[in-house]
Amino acid sequence: MSNNLLSTQPYKGTRDFYPAEMRFRNWFFGKIREVLERSAYEEYNAPMLESFDIYAAKSGEELASTQTYNFMDRGDRHLAIRPEMTPSVARMVAAKIYDLNMPLKWFAIPNMYRCEAPQRGRLREFWQLNVDIFGCDGFEADMDVIESAINVLRVFGADETMFKVHINNRRFFNDVISAICDSDADGAKKVSKIVDKKNKIPREVYEKEMGALGIDAEKLAKIDALYTMSVEEATALCPDSVGAKELSDLFALLEETGLAKYCVFDFGIIRGLDYYTGTVFEVFDEAPENNRAMYGGGRYDNLVGLFVKNAKVSGVGYGMGDVTLENFLVTHNLVPDFSEGNTKVLVARFNDVPYKEYIALTASLRDAGITSALYLGTKKFGKQIDYASKEGYTHIVIMGGSEFENGVVKVKNLLTREENEVAIAELANYFVK
Amino acid sequence: MSNNLLSTQPYKGTRDFYPAEMRFRNWFFGKIREVLERSAYEEYNAPMLESFDIYAAKSGEELASTQTYNFMDRGDRHLAIRPEMTPSVARMVAAKIYDLNMPLKWFAIPNMYRCEAPQRGRLREFWQLNVDIFGCDGFEADMDVIESAINVLRVFGADETMFKVHINNRRFFNDVISAICDSDADGAKKVSKIVDKKNKIPREVYEKEMGALGIDAEKLAKIDALYTMSVEEATALCPDSVGAKELSDLFALLEETGLAKYCVFDFGIIRGLDYYTGTVFEVFDEAPENNRAMYGGGRYDNLVGLFVKNAKVSGVGYGMGDVTLENFLVTHNLVPDFSEGNTKVLVARFNDVPYKEYIALTASLRDAGITSALYLGTKKFGKQIDYASKEGYTHIVIMGGSEFENGVVKVKNLLTREENEVAIAELANYFVK
Repeated sequence: MSNNLLSTQPYKGTRDFYPAEMRFRNWFFGKIREVLERSAYEEYNAPMLESFDIYAAKSGEELASTQTYNFMDRGDRHLAIRPEMTPSVARMVAAKIYDLNMPLKWFAIPNMYRCEAPQRGRLREFWQLNVDIFGCDGFEADMDVIESAINVLRVFGADETMFKVHINNRRFFNDVISAICDSDADGAKKVSKIVDKKNKIPREVYEKEMGALGIDAEKLAKIDALYTMSVEEATALCPDSVGAKELSDLFALLEETGLAKYCVFDFGIIRGLDYYTGTVFEVFDEAPENNRAMYGGGRYDNLVGLFVKNAKVSGVGYGMGDVTLENFLVTHNLVPDFSEGNTKVLVARFNDVPYKEYIALTASLRDAGITSALYLGTKKFGKQIDYASKEGYTHIVIMGGSEFENGVVKVKNLLTREENEVAIAELANYFVK
Repeated sequence: MSNNLLSTQPYKGTRDFYPAEMRFRNWFFGKIREVLERSAYEEYNAPMLESFDIYAAKSGEELASTQTYNFMDRGDRHLAIRPEMTPSVARMVAAKIYDLNMPLKWFAIPNMYRCEAPQRGRLREFWQLNVDIFGCDGFEADMDVIESAINVLRVFGADETMFKVHINNRRFFNDVISAICDSDADGAKKVSKIVDKKNKIPREVYEKEMGALGIDAEKLAKIDALYTMSVEEATALCPDSVGAKELSDLFALLEETGLAKYCVFDFGIIRGLDYYTGTVFEVFDEAPENNRAMYGGGRYDNLVGLFVKNAKVSGVGYGMGDVTLENFLVTHNLVPDFSEGNTKVLVARFNDVPYKEYIALTASLRDAGITSALYLGTKKFGKQIDYASKEGYTHIVIMGGSEFENGVVKVKNLLTREENEVAIAELANYFVK
């Protein structure tokens, strides 16, 4: 061991999870698993390291190269730590495309890395809930995925005052832009790039870039108007559009099923990536101090085609980061007090009773399903009580020599300070009752 | 999208987890969490990427370099994907050494990477259960950790015919070798290296290497004899040894608490790494076809000292790989049938009932806590039944136009083929009862 001490800090942009943090994470991921499994979504996972190619094929060599941690292995294979799950899951679907039973309702909560400067809500290592349906082209899958995106917040007690799902449709977007600007699909795509960054650039820049595409003030005014229109008004602008029908059908169904209160039509939702083809959505935090997109997704076509010739498997899904969810739960006071209601018993230890008696007593509690531990060591009772309180034990069991001789223990409730004498044979029942 | 198709295979030595595999993993990791938490072990986690230095400091630059995936980040920081958890947890303990409430009972189930040729039971990506107690120097912690190493198998229904914990003590080893060979601590350490590989080298090589340390046939016979001795016989050879007392105290306690049937003294257990200082153990699979060490651990001193000057925090713990555990559970037939007992309901869809009615029906089942999904798509009923059976649904709910008009559904049990008519308002109760 050298004299140079090592740093105790985790790598920049990553986090250590001490037990209190881990309890919180296990709680919220557990709730999410529960709500998704109840809707028959099934969990999967894939390796943390993947071939670099699968990111390059989806996002381009340059983006993949700057955004991932990537390196060569000793066999000269170019690997990357996954920065997202979609290429992995597309690969997995492709690998068993003839065996899998479509439609698939899948989810995962993998850890992943993004090679970028850490900032609020974005870290280098993060966990991301991924929910996807593969192999259903219809609006039914869009509806199911959006319903699940609502339920993963509702399960924590969040209501419509706390979040809203902003919904748009890429096909509708293209059609309405084409109708307004008289442009083709390629022109609409160029417009989408500018709309996508509208909130991040000054109005003058926005107008200038639109102008460069031949969009004059009159057309611009028509586009601006879309932001405040209802779905009915907006879709009426291109009545023959398949995308418009998809959008209005979806909103009609949201209305009929009582989910419309969580949703809003938002013409500004584009989801930058080119592979989105239909419904797109982003879930916004409604808290004034944090009013921004938390997570989102949409329908994307045929990533599976990167792996299997002539494969046509469309998907619809979303990804939600753990940091985002944590911020949301804390902001809206949706985190319970974990110390409440969970009995946790420390058996104190004294030197005048054989050690084996303590082990047997602790095992009997555990066998009855009660979380319990024996104090490890020989410190004075005061120190043991101290330890129990700091570690969140709710009760301490006292069996000194005289108690042991009489076949009893004292049980002290560390929250109420109440103390009771209980027969050893009755101890498990005392806690279970 | 290029014309060159990408490989659908995961990176060599890593695994994709499809839902069936993932269900199995979630089941066994869930059982392990439950049994450890019941003994008040608390879960933690650390980042997947760590500074390369922490592995180099523990295992030496060369070993760390060949065994880990390591690379430089853009800020020229030398990083490694963790090949083990111990350096990370030592770092975490060091970072809060003055705040943490010792002794700590901690566990983690992280994913990690080992850069080596995959072989049976050893893959490049694996998950490893890590259980450790920090800050308790006494045999109490050794006992607690060994008890937990037994309980993480017992929780699956494994008994003493299926596994055995082989126990030794490094301090005792040094003392008894010193007594037999008249050597000092350094000499005993050299002997330990040879003993550690005894089963992997021919007897002649073993004898030759021992001979080179000045250990003649007579001394060798005495060492050989240790392998078949009881704890009492072995420890009697060096009655003043602290390690001998630790070993016999531990076995006495195992006897008194009924755990001795799971344990055996084994002089051959060394655990190669130099940092082990006291109790060491390995858990063996007793199946004849797989009779070998599955996992192990022991007491190690002061890894925390790599991070904090003058820190003295000893630890005792073990690590168990997921592949090992999977093999054990399968070999001993300890995997339950996951399809049993879990109601999973598919609501079939027909075109003569409004879609919203199906969504409402499915949501009402889900709200009653029943795992249920609506068939996504418009395929014929026969295809929907087919889908339900393949995806492990236990029931299918049929609400065609005539049922809907009469306020009823048909429920078909896919396992028994039984079919019942149930009032829509009673449907949730039908499954809950």
